[in-house]
Amino acid sequence: MPSYTAPTRDTRFIINEMLDLESYAELPGFEAASADVTDAVINEGGKFCAEVLAPINQSGDQEGCTRHEDGSVTAPKGFKEAFDQFREAGWGTLSQPEEFGGQGMPHVLGFAFEEFVSSANQAFGMYPGLTNGAVSALLAKGSQEQKEKYLPKMISNEWTGTMNLTEPHCGTDLGMIRTKAEPQADGSYAITGTKIFISAGEHDMADNIIHLVLAKTPGAPDSTKGISLFVVPKFLVEEDGSIGERNGVVCGSIEHKMGIHGNATCVLNYDGAKGWLVGEENKGLAAMFIMMNAARLGVGIQGLSQAEVAYQNAVAYALDRRQGRALTGPAEPEQQADPIFVHPDVRRMLMDAKAFTEGMRALCLWGALQVDLSHKAATEEEREQADMLIGLLTPVIKGYGTDKGYEVATNMQQVFGGHGYIEEWGMSQFVRDARIAQIYEGTNGVQAMDLCGRKLAQKGGAAVQAFFKVVGEDIAEAKGDETLAPLAEAMEKALGQQQAATMWFMQNAMQNPNHLGAGAHHYMHIMGIVTLGWMWLRMAKAAQAALAAGTDDKAFYEAKLTTARYYMDRYLPDAGALRRKLETGSDSMMALGEEAFATAA
Amino acid sequence: MPSYTAPTRDTRFIINEMLDLESYAELPGFEAASADVTDAVINEGGKFCAEVLAPINQSGDQEGCTRHEDGSVTAPKGFKEAFDQFREAGWGTLSQPEEFGGQGMPHVLGFAFEEFVSSANQAFGMYPGLTNGAVSALLAKGSQEQKEKYLPKMISNEWTGTMNLTEPHCGTDLGMIRTKAEPQADGSYAITGTKIFISAGEHDMADNIIHLVLAKTPGAPDSTKGISLFVVPKFLVEEDGSIGERNGVVCGSIEHKMGIHGNATCVLNYDGAKGWLVGEENKGLAAMFIMMNAARLGVGIQGLSQAEVAYQNAVAYALDRRQGRALTGPAEPEQQADPIFVHPDVRRMLMDAKAFTEGMRALCLWGALQVDLSHKAATEEEREQADMLIGLLTPVIKGYGTDKGYEVATNMQQVFGGHGYIEEWGMSQFVRDARIAQIYEGTNGVQAMDLCGRKLAQKGGAAVQAFFKVVGEDIAEAKGDETLAPLAEAMEKALGQQQAATMWFMQNAMQNPNHLGAGAHHYMHIMGIVTLGWMWLRMAKAAQAALAAGTDDKAFYEAKLTTARYYMDRYLPDAGALRRKLETGSDSMMALGEEAFATAA
Repeated sequence: MPSYTAPTRDTRFIINEMLDLESYAELPGFEAASADVTDAVINEGGKFCAEVLAPINQSGDQEGCTRHEDGSVTAPKGFKEAFDQFREAGWGTLSQPEEFGGQGMPHVLGFAFEEFVSSANQAFGMYPGLTNGAVSALLAKGSQEQKEKYLPKMISNEWTGTMNLTEPHCGTDLGMIRTKAEPQADGSYAITGTKIFISAGEHDMADNIIHLVLAKTPGAPDSTKGISLFVVPKFLVEEDGSIGERNGVVCGSIEHKMGIHGNATCVLNYDGAKGWLVGEENKGLAAMFIMMNAARLGVGIQGLSQAEVAYQNAVAYALDRRQGRALTGPAEPEQQADPIFVHPDVRRMLMDAKAFTEGMRALCLWGALQVDLSHKAATEEEREQADMLIGLLTPVIKGYGTDKGYEVATNMQQVFGGHGYIEEWGMSQFVRDARIAQIYEGTNGVQAMDLCGRKLAQKGGAAVQAFFKVVGEDIAEAKGDETLAPLAEAMEKALGQQQAATMWFMQNAMQNPNHLGAGAHHYMHIMGIVTLGWMWLRMAKAAQAALAAGTDDKAFYEAKLTTARYYMDRYLPDAGALRRKLETGSDSMMALGEEAFATAA
Repeated sequence: MPSYTAPTRDTRFIINEMLDLESYAELPGFEAASADVTDAVINEGGKFCAEVLAPINQSGDQEGCTRHEDGSVTAPKGFKEAFDQFREAGWGTLSQPEEFGGQGMPHVLGFAFEEFVSSANQAFGMYPGLTNGAVSALLAKGSQEQKEKYLPKMISNEWTGTMNLTEPHCGTDLGMIRTKAEPQADGSYAITGTKIFISAGEHDMADNIIHLVLAKTPGAPDSTKGISLFVVPKFLVEEDGSIGERNGVVCGSIEHKMGIHGNATCVLNYDGAKGWLVGEENKGLAAMFIMMNAARLGVGIQGLSQAEVAYQNAVAYALDRRQGRALTGPAEPEQQADPIFVHPDVRRMLMDAKAFTEGMRALCLWGALQVDLSHKAATEEEREQADMLIGLLTPVIKGYGTDKGYEVATNMQQVFGGHGYIEEWGMSQFVRDARIAQIYEGTNGVQAMDLCGRKLAQKGGAAVQAFFKVVGEDIAEAKGDETLAPLAEAMEKALGQQQAATMWFMQNAMQNPNHLGAGAHHYMHIMGIVTLGWMWLRMAKAAQAALAAGTDDKAFYEAKLTTARYYMDRYLPDAGALRRKLETGSDSMMALGEEAFATAA
């Protein structure tokens, strides 16, 4: 069975040293997050995930969820008990507002914990993960009554939540949804329609499930401007908060998927189910986007999480498995063969994984801090800056993070040779589970268009200019330091590639928007490469500071500097190639018509 | 259910126009391969695969193989019947020597057919595919008696064959095998040991299974120099060729794998099984390599095949599924949304797939021609040149072809959005099946080292110099043509990247062999990119010739020119980035010790 240890040492380094969380102590919620408290939460959270969630990951994959004839669904063995423990320990309350029973800690801690949960058991993590998404939407758009009715029990994880967007004929294009919401005399709506791909849509792990559902009211415009959001509980909730009668929503079937078998992906049939409008009529998409943005960051973390757990197992295998000899001569002549760890091509895959996971962890936690700062920073300007940066980076964290996470998981499976292909070893599951992250919450193609078609252009490019400015400042500062200068110089060139690509879009996309669409994927990857490089520069700076100050853990900080160098060597060159591709535009890409793609016999 | 049509139009173009097979009519076996005959074989073969093999691909994946208590194994429903039809039609005999009941046709036809088989049903194709590998080894190294005893029934597919290399503790490093071969008084050997990962190792589709097994005779050297090859039939074969008693080899279990569920991957337990030495004692590895080289080309074709079938289904989905609007304005305003085919990011994935599959098909068929020429060309010089080129390109076809094939299959799954993740649609199976091709018959890391550590250096670099010469000549010629010149100029730069990388290896790898190992994967990809570009240049030339001569099928040839342009735009830039990475050497890659990879809590 594969193993998992939460990488808490690295998490603490990023939070305490790279982000210096204590320096934000004057902000609300941060005062409680002293390094002592942070460390304790991280360590306990990591332990919980490794000890309670990881052991039921593979069995959950093998068993999957079971739907019964009455439409009820049973999660795999051990999931309900683990969720009981999760609830009792209050893990779901970490970064939620105190007003509704949360602990009000910074999102930085919530994100750190989310990585551990997802590495240990991605399918399990989706139950509380989607609940968090639903909580975000209700917090932002729900009425006070709705908040009081649902949030305390969702935050405590007595109840879970879902997001209902997709229908059989539409997913990305939500303007086309057909689910209807008919107003009733009592102020509620009767919801009727079919939703598909509803993760955590039905299960036996909680007393109630609060569905957030996109639907159309009678006469609503036939576009995304005609979508409203409704809260539709599985069981109606009585005035006193107790569970009432069963609502008219039933799980019609569950999907047989490539992975995340432990999470029930449901077809939900709404047949006049009682629902209540969240926010204003026809403004559902905006509410949904709040939920979606939170979810997209969570999905980016899943890219990291599968890469991380796959990496840990690949390292163990590479040190254990003996085949062949080091190219420079036997490393362990007394043994019949050397561990495959000595082979450069194995090391390449491990270093690629190390450089990605540590860089991506830094990016996710930096992103979490921006989420916090966008709400809590002292000045309006700081809040706006943080909001702009996290808005810009959300599609990168989701799109680049999951593309690369899948690639790394696949490479870690490769380290195992033939054994990687056998389900027993668990590597296949990491790859199969990682695959979904590139698809859901908006495919990575949608992320690329969100980045290039929307975020780049917003406010006259203010967000990307702000990004260039902060990254440029860090590069300029690092150039003044002897150790950091070579890293900074490499980064300067990579940032230049992104700037050139941005300029090319500005000069060409107006004339032909297909030029933008044709390069969006490449741009997202350029930006991912640059952003992780920036994180490596920041980590190198923190490592350098620790070494200069004197430390007992010299090896840890020196490894950071070496891995930063590796990142610059082996990741940054792609930025230039991607820019060259992007600058070829859409001409050869869009020239061929439908008939040229038909298979001629 | 996913669909499949054999891309015979493209295959015929490559064989008749790009390779101009008829120009080799004076060579043995080629005289029969007139364009008429070739076209008929291709068309009939394609039809057979689409009609007989494709319909049982998904059901084979879902059902898998079943091992019974007595060690017997049943292939999925329909496999036995399909193999009966395959045998009756004589498809296995296509490129096999007439002396043993084959049709003696060029390998070009055999490879073309193999692509169709693998696209239609990769798990099925492995049964005759491994038989072909075993046939190659017996043809090259078996005694006349062995050939007469086994080959006719293997070639006719009455019996199938297997390759037994891997043991629980060793795969890549075959010097470590423990299976023993004790000489017996009657000239046979008693084979005892455990072999794992034996594809097609046990099944109910043929009357006998001929295992080729690596084992060690008593006192043999403790390295690859002590390996001998044995032929070990499942049922002993009587003097008259009839089936005799059951031999001492039993399937102990079958693996639960990520994919290729329709093929039984067996643990085979040999307990004093009767075997006969093939070739000389302690020379087993050389014999195995004959088999392996044939198998590696077959695996490269699998990379192509899964990309192709996934591509066909993605095209159909992209034309059918409607979401959103074209960036340049509604393409079909009367419909509620446009087909996703209009979106540049979808088109990017489809064009990437088209450029890869057509280029890779050209490379596989060109490679098949080299196999033929290495045996049959008129002069020793031509035979040597062909042998050198296919030896050099075999790891590229296997390694690059399957890395890219997996990537393309994954992207085609991506075109389906959420539906791609649901098993019902079949896209997951293409990805899961494609995944094994990067691993078996030598992982792609092993391919990269075969290319860089062995093939590049052989005969003072003669093979790679020969490659540079033929590609360089085609570039020089194309530069003289107005239409082809831009393609040729792009190719010249890419070839320059490969030449620079080669030079860097020459200047640095002697001093530190890790520099070679650290760049081998990148070099293999550079060479794959350059080689497919070369194929596109040759296809563009053939297309240009057809257009100049006048043709009814203008659209087909024009699409070739456009796709060639796309290839140069979107594939070649990676060659430069890979070279830059390669030139950073192994310093940052190999600097960190074991402890730096441990997960610190």
